[in-house]
Amino acid sequence: MNIKLVLKSVGLLLLCEAIAIIPSMAVSLIYQEHNTLAFLDTILILIGVAAPLLMIQIKNKNMYARDGFAIVALGWILMSFFGALPFVFSGTIPSLIDSFFETSSGFTTTGASILTNIEILPKGILFWRSFTHWIGGMGVIVLTLAILPSLGARGMQMMKAESPGPNPSKLVPRVGETAKILYGIYVIITIVEVSLLVLTGMPLYDAFIHTFGTVGTGGFSNMNLSVGAYNNVFAEIIITVFMFISGANFTLYYYMLKGNLKAPFKDEEFRSYFGIVAVAILLITLDTNAHVFHNIWESLRHASFQVVSIVTTTGYATTDFEKWTMFSKIILFILMFIGGCAGSTGGAIKNIRILLLFKIMKRELLQIIHPRAVYAVRLGKKAVDERTLAEVLGFFFMYITVFIAGVLIISLDNLDWGTTISSVAATLGNIGPGFGIVGATGNYSSLSDISKLTLSILMIIGRLEIYPILLLGVPSFWKRVSI
Amino acid sequence: MNIKLVLKSVGLLLLCEAIAIIPSMAVSLIYQEHNTLAFLDTILILIGVAAPLLMIQIKNKNMYARDGFAIVALGWILMSFFGALPFVFSGTIPSLIDSFFETSSGFTTTGASILTNIEILPKGILFWRSFTHWIGGMGVIVLTLAILPSLGARGMQMMKAESPGPNPSKLVPRVGETAKILYGIYVIITIVEVSLLVLTGMPLYDAFIHTFGTVGTGGFSNMNLSVGAYNNVFAEIIITVFMFISGANFTLYYYMLKGNLKAPFKDEEFRSYFGIVAVAILLITLDTNAHVFHNIWESLRHASFQVVSIVTTTGYATTDFEKWTMFSKIILFILMFIGGCAGSTGGAIKNIRILLLFKIMKRELLQIIHPRAVYAVRLGKKAVDERTLAEVLGFFFMYITVFIAGVLIISLDNLDWGTTISSVAATLGNIGPGFGIVGATGNYSSLSDISKLTLSILMIIGRLEIYPILLLGVPSFWKRVSI
Repeated sequence: MNIKLVLKSVGLLLLCEAIAIIPSMAVSLIYQEHNTLAFLDTILILIGVAAPLLMIQIKNKNMYARDGFAIVALGWILMSFFGALPFVFSGTIPSLIDSFFETSSGFTTTGASILTNIEILPKGILFWRSFTHWIGGMGVIVLTLAILPSLGARGMQMMKAESPGPNPSKLVPRVGETAKILYGIYVIITIVEVSLLVLTGMPLYDAFIHTFGTVGTGGFSNMNLSVGAYNNVFAEIIITVFMFISGANFTLYYYMLKGNLKAPFKDEEFRSYFGIVAVAILLITLDTNAHVFHNIWESLRHASFQVVSIVTTTGYATTDFEKWTMFSKIILFILMFIGGCAGSTGGAIKNIRILLLFKIMKRELLQIIHPRAVYAVRLGKKAVDERTLAEVLGFFFMYITVFIAGVLIISLDNLDWGTTISSVAATLGNIGPGFGIVGATGNYSSLSDISKLTLSILMIIGRLEIYPILLLGVPSFWKRVSI
Repeated sequence: MNIKLVLKSVGLLLLCEAIAIIPSMAVSLIYQEHNTLAFLDTILILIGVAAPLLMIQIKNKNMYARDGFAIVALGWILMSFFGALPFVFSGTIPSLIDSFFETSSGFTTTGASILTNIEILPKGILFWRSFTHWIGGMGVIVLTLAILPSLGARGMQMMKAESPGPNPSKLVPRVGETAKILYGIYVIITIVEVSLLVLTGMPLYDAFIHTFGTVGTGGFSNMNLSVGAYNNVFAEIIITVFMFISGANFTLYYYMLKGNLKAPFKDEEFRSYFGIVAVAILLITLDTNAHVFHNIWESLRHASFQVVSIVTTTGYATTDFEKWTMFSKIILFILMFIGGCAGSTGGAIKNIRILLLFKIMKRELLQIIHPRAVYAVRLGKKAVDERTLAEVLGFFFMYITVFIAGVLIISLDNLDWGTTISSVAATLGNIGPGFGIVGATGNYSSLSDISKLTLSILMIIGRLEIYPILLLGVPSFWKRVSI
């Protein structure tokens, strides 16, 4: 491993974090909240840590895949650690483990919270809490669409397999240029959503908070009842649409800006994402109409919002879906594993992998019927190579294995089945709320410190698509350090 | 498909079933239970159905893999259907769906029951109920070790991948000879266990019932409290040992009979099976000692029995493990997915696949660290070919997919999380009891007919290792019928 390069890169990330704290400090100054020092101290500490790392002289500029994974893994953990300091310093979340949980949840765009009463927190602190979603979402877009493909990183290679849809590595020749275009799209979407939410009558501050939570598919709100607190149908529709947009591949929007308005519907992953959302809304609308709301429009309203919120791994709520039937809850639980599209801010396994897994399953069955025939798994019109298919199958096993390992650790808290299982699914998949104690109106505050720390790590594991964090545990990952 | 050959083979299976009912009829005569007609009528119906099928003239004697799958799938479904008739005719289980559930559960060696009071049933009927385990267990051994490998059936090919352990296709050159040897081993194990149980003071009838449940890894008892009813430590130890024996690859015993007494410990799958059992017993002993029994020997006694009972997919109980902590329950839940070894009477995913999946996972991580290195996945000293690895990965995805589809259907009953999830895991994996309503002291009687039928099909899907039943749903499976 090129340890010097890794350390210097992490230093750069921490310097960026110091800069990213400034807007939140400004909000706290505007609202005269007397906790500006909590932000300032954090900025100074970050600069103090980043400065020596940035001064490291690098002789060997070669960067291999594992160096990239190390930067991403260490970067995400350290940013969550230092990002937690404003909560600790301001006394709003005194426990370091709780603050780390909340900040990991922010940066990974999970939206799981240990706060029992959000509304009593200062506006500057809540702004920072939600702003981490926006940074995290941007980080992931750039990570999955610009940086990781250029590292030839396993699992991300799938992007290349996608033929009718856009090929991310060909958006523009250089990583830096790609990142700029994606940043631009991300900022435009953000501005449009904030403006639309303000038009529905939502206060500007709240509009920002909920836009950060939407475009990053995070889910932090400044209201205890989440989006349901406003009981504002127009705001709900806007947030539903923007959650859906943020759960799709961002390169599709680049192609749309270029004039190819049909790009999404030519993309097989987008079509399957759209189909899964439509079927889930239909089933839950019928089920909640029969057993919960007894009103088809009310059922459609909450079913649409909740399905899109969960499948995009955002986690906002307009109603307490804990009170729905087990059938509707199981549908939401399944959506927690599917997640958004590749190249979106959404988490979990992702639609493109699910799509390929079912195509592989179909091929296995056909192969038995016609043992001598040769079948290719196609995405759009192009055959997907066998190496990619093996990686997708391997990813699925790893995801389930990490999920099961997480469930085993959380089970030490001796909670009910729904809480034990869904808390792991909701953090590993970066959704936020689960069922039971951690349901729509609940939170993660009553869990043990061991569980909170485990779930924080699971959020980061899920966000970085399993490999980077697991690699930190492989001894040979650290060997052959080049100096 | 060679439909004539399939139908004639199914006819032969049904004739065998008619013969297999005779011992149960004899038991009912010995105990003078006045329900002999229920058995006799079933035998006559079976002969009436089998006779015309057996008279089919076959011109084309070519048998392909899909013909084999069709025979197995249709055979198992029809045997469960006709095997249910003695329960219906005797009035002991009047509902045909309930009887079908109980009989599928018997033949698939699951052991899940819809009976609320087992002890009031006639001895002949209970003998038939348990005898289906013994037939099912024998059927599976022969199926997985003798017939399927010769069909080149997907997923079963793994047996060939096993190098240090015995190679089933080479036991003896012909399928028929292999089957005879395996039958012999199966009968010897049965006789030894019955004798030992009688020595502990268990009545002969009860010894037969529990031996059928043990060697078939089924789990049906004639007592409401299962093995716990005897509170007999020696019987528990004997049953534990024989469950463990029945959960291992039967070809190992052939090699041991041939004088190679170290065969099991040279076999990597057996070592991993042994290791998993040991670790699970250790963890649950410590956990139940701290939270349930507060007595290390009592904890070890119940932990050992329960771990072996679940991992071998038998499902006997000596204590109500529903009262254990979530940690112990989650360990048992994980064991429900691991199951026995390939070539055993145990069900679920099987140790050899789990072992290979973890080896694949390790390789994926090493491959990232050293992208240019070529790693082979080895079992013993031999490299496993990539096609087999892809099949194992595909099998895992199919197993989880069928599990999730099952959970979605069962969720329509609107039961609790523990029951909803574990009832599917416990039937698909051929275990029997789950948690919640279907726990150690519960049963499946209160579930809806749709759920009972779904779980019956899941038992057969799990028993036949997913493919045969799924293939029945593929249109092209039925095409190109040769006459």
